[in-house]
Order: sequence, then C-alpha cells, then structure tokens
Amino acid sequence: MHYRHNFNPTISDEEIFDNILDEQELIGYYSLPLQDPSIYKEYAKGVKQKNIVVIGIGGSTLGTYAIYKYLKHSKELTKKLYFLETTDPIDIESKLENVDLNDTLFIVISKSGTTIETISIFKYIHSLVSIDKNNCVVVTEHDSKLKTYADANGMKSFEIPKNVGGRFSVFSAVGLLPLAIVGINIDDLLKGAKMVHQSFFNKRNFYKRLINKARFLVEYKNSFNVNVVFSYSSRLEGFNKWYIQLWGESLGKVDINSTRQGLTPIGIIGPIDQHSFLQLIIEGKRDKTVTVIKVENFYNHLKIPPVKLEGLEELDYIDNLEFSKLINKQADATIESINNVNDIPCDVITIDGMCESAIAALMYEYELLTSLCAKFMYIDAYNQPGVESGKKILKEKLIKNI
Amino acid sequence: MHYRHNFNPTISDEEIFDNILDEQELIGYYSLPLQDPSIYKEYAKGVKQKNIVVIGIGGSTLGTYAIYKYLKHSKELTKKLYFLETTDPIDIESKLENVDLNDTLFIVISKSGTTIETISIFKYIHSLVSIDKNNCVVVTEHDSKLKTYADANGMKSFEIPKNVGGRFSVFSAVGLLPLAIVGINIDDLLKGAKMVHQSFFNKRNFYKRLINKARFLVEYKNSFNVNVVFSYSSRLEGFNKWYIQLWGESLGKVDINSTRQGLTPIGIIGPIDQHSFLQLIIEGKRDKTVTVIKVENFYNHLKIPPVKLEGLEELDYIDNLEFSKLINKQADATIESINNVNDIPCDVITIDGMCESAIAALMYEYELLTSLCAKFMYIDAYNQPGVESGKKILKEKLIKNI
Repeated sequence: MHYRHNFNPTISDEEIFDNILDEQELIGYYSLPLQDPSIYKEYAKGVKQKNIVVIGIGGSTLGTYAIYKYLKHSKELTKKLYFLETTDPIDIESKLENVDLNDTLFIVISKSGTTIETISIFKYIHSLVSIDKNNCVVVTEHDSKLKTYADANGMKSFEIPKNVGGRFSVFSAVGLLPLAIVGINIDDLLKGAKMVHQSFFNKRNFYKRLINKARFLVEYKNSFNVNVVFSYSSRLEGFNKWYIQLWGESLGKVDINSTRQGLTPIGIIGPIDQHSFLQLIIEGKRDKTVTVIKVENFYNHLKIPPVKLEGLEELDYIDNLEFSKLINKQADATIESINNVNDIPCDVITIDGMCESAIAALMYEYELLTSLCAKFMYIDAYNQPGVESGKKILKEKLIKNI
Repeated sequence: MHYRHNFNPTISDEEIFDNILDEQELIGYYSLPLQDPSIYKEYAKGVKQKNIVVIGIGGSTLGTYAIYKYLKHSKELTKKLYFLETTDPIDIESKLENVDLNDTLFIVISKSGTTIETISIFKYIHSLVSIDKNNCVVVTEHDSKLKTYADANGMKSFEIPKNVGGRFSVFSAVGLLPLAIVGINIDDLLKGAKMVHQSFFNKRNFYKRLINKARFLVEYKNSFNVNVVFSYSSRLEGFNKWYIQLWGESLGKVDINSTRQGLTPIGIIGPIDQHSFLQLIIEGKRDKTVTVIKVENFYNHLKIPPVKLEGLEELDYIDNLEFSKLINKQADATIESINNVNDIPCDVITIDGMCESAIAALMYEYELLTSLCAKFMYIDAYNQPGVESGKKILKEKLIKNI
C-alpha cells in the first residue's frame, strides 16, 4: 500500500522544532544574523553622495523602509534614503522633485534581476542622469541578468543568496547595504536579530512561547482568520507594511492536501486607529486576533504644557504629562478594553526602544513566527506561485499591446 | 402578543431605498453635496499664511488627507497642508521640524471638542508659538467646549452639524475649510459628490447597482468577511485609509438581534502590493472580496525611454510605454488573474482622473454604500459605542496615575 497526503495530524512542539532545525540547512534567512557585515560597512565608508535612492519593490524595499522609518528621527543620519517602488508616474515624479540627482547613489535591487517595475524605473532614471559605476550599485542573485548588466558596466554588485526569499531578506545585502550607507548601525541590527536567534535555538522557554503562539494562530485559524498588529507608534508604520507582506505572502498558500490556507494580516497604528478600526475589533464579529506592540522607551521627553484653555479645563488632568507616557497609557487602555470583552485573543509585545537592536529583534521574531505557522499549516512559506500568473498575463498584454 | 427583535428578513430593494430616503431626514451627510460652500471660500481668500496645520484625529483628518494626497501633485497649490494627529512625540516633532510656525494657520478640528489627542497637541503648540485669532480657527459642534474656547478668544469657528458623524464629515467644514484654503476647488469637489447623489436618488439604474453590491456584500458576509480595496495609484493611499475607517467603524456593530456584525476593510496599493498581498488573495482561503480601483487618466505622460541595458534586453518590450499605461495594464492583469480563478468576487471601479470631482464622487459613493450595508445588517452606521470604554479607562488611568 502507498499513501500520498495524509490529513494533517496534530504535531508536537518537538517535531515542529526539529522541522525548523532541518529547514535551517536549506533556507538561508535563519543564519543571516550570524554573518559578518564588514563588506557593507566597507562599501558604505566610500559613499560620498548625500542622497541614496533605492529602486526596488516588495521584498526589495519593505524591510529597509521599516527600519529606516523606525529610526530616522532618533539617529543622527548623514544621508537621506528614498524609495522608488511603483510605476505610478506621479509618485515617481514627486519623489524625485526634491532630490539632487547629481549627488545621488542609486541602489538597484531585484532578486530575480528582471522585476518589471524596477527595470522600468531604472530605465527612466537613465534619461535624467548619466549612470555608471560611480553612482550606481546593484543587489541581485549571483547569476541574474541584472548581474550581467552590472558586470558589463564594471559596476559593484552585492549578492542576494538564492535561498533567501525577498520578504525574508532584510538582514542580507538588501537591507544592510542601504542602511549602512545612511548611517544605521548594522552591527546593532544584527545583534538584535541574533539575540532572538539564540533565544529561539538555545533557550527552551523562548521557543516554547513562540511555538505556542504559532500553534494557537493556526489551530484557531477558522475562527480567527484575521491577525491584527496594533502598533503604538507612528514609527512602526513601515514595520506594519513589512509584516503584511511577510504574513500574507508566506501563509496564503495551498497546503499538501490541496486545501487553501491563509491568515490575513492587518497593520494599524495607535492611537490614530482607535478612532477607526478599534470599533470593529471591539463590537464586530469575532474573527480577529490582536497583537499590541508598545515601545518601552521613546527616548523623548516632549511634554504637554499646563496651558489654560478657557472652556476646556476638564482636560487639565493631562497637563505636564509626557507624550510618550500618554501614548503608552493609551495602549494600556486599549489592551484593557479588549481584555474586558473576554473573547478576543490578544497578546502584547513591548520592544525596548528607538534603537537598531529593538526593531531588528521584532522583525526576526516575526520571521520565525511566520516559519512556524507555515510548518503547522503544512505549506511552503518561501514561494509565491499565486503571483506568477498575473506576471505572465501582463507580459502578454504588453507584447501584444492588448 | 408583543414582539421585540424579529430575525432579520430579506428586505427588498424598494424597502432599502425607502429606508435611506427616511434616514436622509435625520442623518446630515446625505445633503452635504447640495450646500453652498461660499463661507469657506470667503474665509480662504483672507488666509495669508503659507502653512496650514490641521490638528485633529480620525474623522477630523482622514477625509481631508485622502483628497489632499490624491490631488496635491496634480494641482498648483499655493499652500502646504500638514496633519498633527497622533500623540507619538517623535511624529509631532518630526512633522513640525520644517514648518515655519510664524507663517502657519492652525485649524483645530474636534467634533466633540474634547478629543484628548487634539487638545494635548494644541496645548503643546501653545508652548511653541503665540496662538490667537490671527493664526487659529476652530471646527467643532456649535455647543462644544472647544467652541467656548474659540468664543472666549474671539476666534473664528466653523460648525460641524450634530447629525454629521466624523467619518462622514469630509464634505462639511471639516474637509472643505482646509482644502479651500490650500487651493483645492471645493465647488468641483461638491459637484463630484452631487453627481453621485443625483444618480442615486434620481436614477433607478444607479441605485440598483449600488444596492446590489451592498446586498451581495452583506448576504455573503459569513463567507467573505474581508473586503479588499486594491487601488492602482499611490495617490489613493489616503483614500484607502479613509475607507478603512468608514467601513470598519460604521459596520462593526451589534445588530438589533444582539448579534455581532462587521465587515473587515483592507486597503492595498497596486502594483506595490502585487508583490505582497496578492499571493494571499489568489491562493489563500476564499474569505475576501476585491474591489479594484483604477484611474482612467493620470494626466501624465512620463515614459519609459528606450535605453539599452546589457543583459536585460528581454525587457525591451516596455520601451516607449507611458508609466500611466503600464500601471493600468498591471491593474488589468491583476483583474484577469483574479477572474481566472473563478471564485473570488471582484468588481472594478474606474475613476475619471486626477481631479476634484473624481475623488469626491468615489468618496460619496462609498459613503452611500456604507449606509446601504448598514441597512441590510440592521445596525446603526453612525455611532461608535465600542470605543467609549477605552476612553473611560484612559481617563481613569491618567487621573489616578495608574
């Protein structure tokens, strides 16, 4: 007798952990925190331009943007980073409006090397400014056609390993190169990710916690098919977008029994979305889990001054409060009101503060959580067959002009 | 015998339409497109400052931001608009960094008049610059405490009618005042909304179409509990956020039979999110409807130049293509690949172009659609009881300092 595709059994924590250990041999992102990032720091030292423009889309930009957006106002950065990532002509023009292209380094990032958005924009850039090895560098797979282009023009290129998927690539050249150039401490980034790596692979408690979370999310996926990340800082807006790609594109798959799987990610920002999405969470259908992300230390002491406003005296209890305290109390109030209704699964992650290691630790933890959920779902987290058909249709439309 | 709360019956198109006709008497947003906006244009003429800072959150900013973001690069605007809408201290500081506060008009917007975020930020502004009737104007309900403040300081104020909810208020003073000041043509805005108003209330076909859509979304709400808006222009990012508030906060309610209702809004941007969320739509669980929004005319002829890139010749078929054509073909390819899988409900809205009437028509149509869905669900679209408990908890935490 032969069998193909058993129904998914309940799988033990130890088995899941062993699966991840096996997967580590094949999937490259796991070990990225352990690398030596000297090549990026070396290259960064030599960059003279003030503006850095990344041309890329999806996995080639979202992680870098998440870290840059999180840190850019808390660090003394000497250069500015821009992202050209869409074919919307108004977006392209408006982003370039204020950039001195003669004082710009272009970083062209495409794993496959032939991403249509990236190459379209790169061609357009050629019509604005002369491109050569002095103002352009490439990040791609070692044997891609973009690499051929770089080599033909004597341009420096950095490699994205074949076994590191775009949405898991933030700690490869994709993220480290531009971030090092603008002055983010990439050693600290890797340190933060490594901390989580070590906790997961060496400390029983930590991996148990993360496995429990993944198990819950997957076992209850039919009741709670939407996973809300509620981030209490506008600085985490980029992280939310990155999470949406990571979660949506990794877990939206057909499993080994030909059954559609998928958990739907939503990213919202506190307190703004208390005035928007919170109503749906609290009173709407019980189809959502909520993870609240708080920032422990904003390293910022901006205060509400004790200004008297005639008629508004009832609000004077906020006088002399630091905004960072206020936003964290707002998070606590939201958590309490979610907990009070008793039937919304809700957990809280508090990250240390506005520093490299904190955001990197959060991101690496989410990568591990994604891999764990995929294991529980019996799907491949690392491919994206569902987007290929659209690419073929587009190519046909363009070539045949239909 | 008496009855309370019948189970919801299937309701006819005519009944729904009559319900909306009745509701028009009570709910103020319906008739906003018919108003005379002269008072806003008059006030706008007298504004000398270059920078306009709106202090507000949720319904007080999202609609204005949606329209401003959509149009700001396509219109010759003489003033810049900023939004202070969160208690995140880093966000507040970074937004004010480049604004000359001595050349700024502040517009404080709060329907209730006592929104904690708005008043906190407004107090903070007092510590940076002297505030008086020459650089500050207020938008609030006629009898709010913020109105008391304005009157006590001889400050101009504009009214938000009691029966116009925050998230339905974009065509009231909330949106029209700041937009008129920065140079958006608010007559054209109202014209766009009025077109939809008239089509709905006078033309049988149009209301049938909209009622059919609402009926479908509600009748299939248990199969498809997530409604994705896939907007093919980065200029629609603000619209997406506005839609999320409108949909989430209006439809996440307990119905007359004490049953939780709610449809979950998601807003994504093409082509960027083809590289992110599309995989989940195509291969994931069938729990989503998709509405693709296309822009017919970008009024922009940016082209991909026929630059030869060694190694990348296979992509030369994009040469000489306009970006606006490319992005619309990308939308078409996505629509086709969604239609090809046969079991994802998908509709397409094509708006005219980068002009006031197009975005206003789209927004007003979505307001009507929201009201219709609420009618089908037997809920009140216009309240938000679920967010009140959090406000009480916050106040207690702040007063008792716990």
